Amino acid sequence: MRRIGASARAAARLVARADDRAKAAALRAMAAGLRDHKDWLQAENAKDLEAARANGLDAAMVDRLTLSDKALGLMAAGLEQIAAMPDPVGELTETRTRPNGMQVARMRVPLGVIAIVYESRPNVTIDAAALCLKSGNATILRGGSEAIHSNTALGRIVRAGLEAAGLPADAVQVVETTDRAAVGKLATMTEFVDVIVPRGGKGLIKRLSEEARVPVIKHLDGICHVYVDRDADLAKAHTIAFNAKTYRYGICGAMETLLVHAGVARAFLPPMGQALAEHGVEMRGCERTLALVPQAVPATEEDWDTEYLGPILSIKVVDDLDQAIGHIEAHGSRHTDSIVTENLSAARRFQREVDSSSVYVNLPTCFADGYEYGLGAEIGISTNKLHARGPVGLEGLTTLKWILTGDGQTRG
Amino acid sequence: MRRIGASARAAARLVARADDRAKAAALRAMAAGLRDHKDWLQAENAKDLEAARANGLDAAMVDRLTLSDKALGLMAAGLEQIAAMPDPVGELTETRTRPNGMQVARMRVPLGVIAIVYESRPNVTIDAAALCLKSGNATILRGGSEAIHSNTALGRIVRAGLEAAGLPADAVQVVETTDRAAVGKLATMTEFVDVIVPRGGKGLIKRLSEEARVPVIKHLDGICHVYVDRDADLAKAHTIAFNAKTYRYGICGAMETLLVHAGVARAFLPPMGQALAEHGVEMRGCERTLALVPQAVPATEEDWDTEYLGPILSIKVVDDLDQAIGHIEAHGSRHTDSIVTENLSAARRFQREVDSSSVYVNLPTCFADGYEYGLGAEIGISTNKLHARGPVGLEGLTTLKWILTGDGQTRG
Repeated sequence: MRRIGASARAAARLVARADDRAKAAALRAMAAGLRDHKDWLQAENAKDLEAARANGLDAAMVDRLTLSDKALGLMAAGLEQIAAMPDPVGELTETRTRPNGMQVARMRVPLGVIAIVYESRPNVTIDAAALCLKSGNATILRGGSEAIHSNTALGRIVRAGLEAAGLPADAVQVVETTDRAAVGKLATMTEFVDVIVPRGGKGLIKRLSEEARVPVIKHLDGICHVYVDRDADLAKAHTIAFNAKTYRYGICGAMETLLVHAGVARAFLPPMGQALAEHGVEMRGCERTLALVPQAVPATEEDWDTEYLGPILSIKVVDDLDQAIGHIEAHGSRHTDSIVTENLSAARRFQREVDSSSVYVNLPTCFADGYEYGLGAEIGISTNKLHARGPVGLEGLTTLKWILTGDGQTRG
Repeated sequence: MRRIGASARAAARLVARADDRAKAAALRAMAAGLRDHKDWLQAENAKDLEAARANGLDAAMVDRLTLSDKALGLMAAGLEQIAAMPDPVGELTETRTRPNGMQVARMRVPLGVIAIVYESRPNVTIDAAALCLKSGNATILRGGSEAIHSNTALGRIVRAGLEAAGLPADAVQVVETTDRAAVGKLATMTEFVDVIVPRGGKGLIKRLSEEARVPVIKHLDGICHVYVDRDADLAKAHTIAFNAKTYRYGICGAMETLLVHAGVARAFLPPMGQALAEHGVEMRGCERTLALVPQAVPATEEDWDTEYLGPILSIKVVDDLDQAIGHIEAHGSRHTDSIVTENLSAARRFQREVDSSSVYVNLPTCFADGYEYGLGAEIGISTNKLHARGPVGLEGLTTLKWILTGDGQTRG
């Protein structure tokens, strides 16, 4: 692993100064490589699929692992999209001239070496490599053992694309060992790795957060709330809450808890409960909810802290905005929370005071996604407060340094 | 400590939504408090000074500990300056409207609860409390045991100022125990502390970096370089290098290593060596330096990795810009490095490729300071790459969250 780290550090210096023409050419060469070597990629992928079936992985897992024609086509299109995005590197901001004539500015520069640790989906190999390269970083990719043949094969395509564009192949390295200790090593090699991004289950993220000495861009739970305020337009509230829960159960922006102001609960909850029940959503409510939603069962204290990622919803009636904000502070995961209201003061207070990476007014929480925000592809949604917060696109993979230019000014 | 953490978290919510009028009033009330209670503060301070002398602390330490009339006056003036600065909280940036009509923006918000761990200088109690309050954060201050009476007294003034402005006193808490375990506790209470800022020696910072589970804004070594390029204006280079070394030996931006292009070493180094020797600076050089600077002694490998913080300088002759950048990468601390050159390409390459928080052209490294950059007071100079990099002023104590506003748009 130290050898891989040292190679990444050396390559990072070269890709940091690469111009966008070279980076875009590499990304387009990778897209061509995916199309030209489809058969070989699918043959390599078949080895993983065979092992997965032999190990009894469930159908959903096998599906995620499969490099179908469609999956490969999406990956190639994604590479071409990222190639066409503006290069974030080198941008100068906050330029000012000081009284002594020296110019002060901030320059956007790559982070350096980014390690990505991920599970099952081999498309991450391509997406992550592309985002990191476009933002001028070197990458070390460590996928799951169940996708080792697929990831290794995709890594070859990536490296060939880099070389075709005159960039160092070591700008993207796929760790070809399935040894678990490799992850711990990556997370502690502070001299070679600038940031580590886990993409996977809570177990992986918890473990990494504890072990890491390298900064972690982490994405923990998405316990997202929709709060229906006293001054909500109840038709909008119905649409928003229904969409927030049912757009897709498995995404981190799915609503897990619905909070309803006591003043509108009687008008809002019965039809809402009816619609959700018809859609097959199990509801777990507080006492006041139970009195209004016959389909609901009693919620336990644990429910308020649970990310279901499935067709289950907890519902609570609150007395006012303060109680709603208090509940979100106590039980939320600082991911994405929304208020439905027509009252400007309530909207302003909610947006300022709810301490989540995304705070919405009159929108369903399922909009939590880099594309929806206009950022393009994302490497994840960060629940960190420092550095990248919310969807992490190209900009989140860069940092700002200070650039001062003078003419021999001295201090003192 | 958990009780202090919980109080800080509760207070953080209140100061986050405080308007600037209240925050500025509190800061001005603290300034008045320092002036009105000067005698009492100096009496409390005298207890620390007495203990310091009894424990044999050296004169410089005792000097830093002293709350002289002048020191108190500077602290009060600093409070008033921070009160007058623009409030960073609530600023909206990157506003865009998406095709579906929803508005996306980023809002600047406080980090939440900031813990500051510092040594000896009691003025940090005031400076840190003021910067954290102005940026809408709650603060837990943990000073050194040698200043416990002074810090506790200053903490009372701060809390009285908060209360006078109708803000919660617990927005600033001074830990009144000198128990060392308290620091470890602060650094691991992730539910109550959002970031920890050590201000002190390397031992403290190293220890905190290892123990912490809370993000650390750290300021490690300042091994700063000045590189005199082949195309340097040698008169400017002389002025810049002399100022970078001699402005003040003890600051983190002081030059510790001078790199000189072989093509100009013969013209540049003899008079430079002469001037530094006359100023009492000890020089440790590579072989080529020794041939040109008779006052220099041979440098060891260790010298290139040493932050002297004193009248010592290591000097190395390099063959070209690449070797200079390579040396800085291998031995620098990513703090502040400068190139002296009239060559635009060399300047551009140095600024892009040197991976330090501040990179200068034709300026001495001793400009590394928030006031010089136009940021106002700073809480430290971060050598982190993520989040705050370089001088950390008010903005570095805030974060950006995403604010989306819609009208019932749905996804899918």
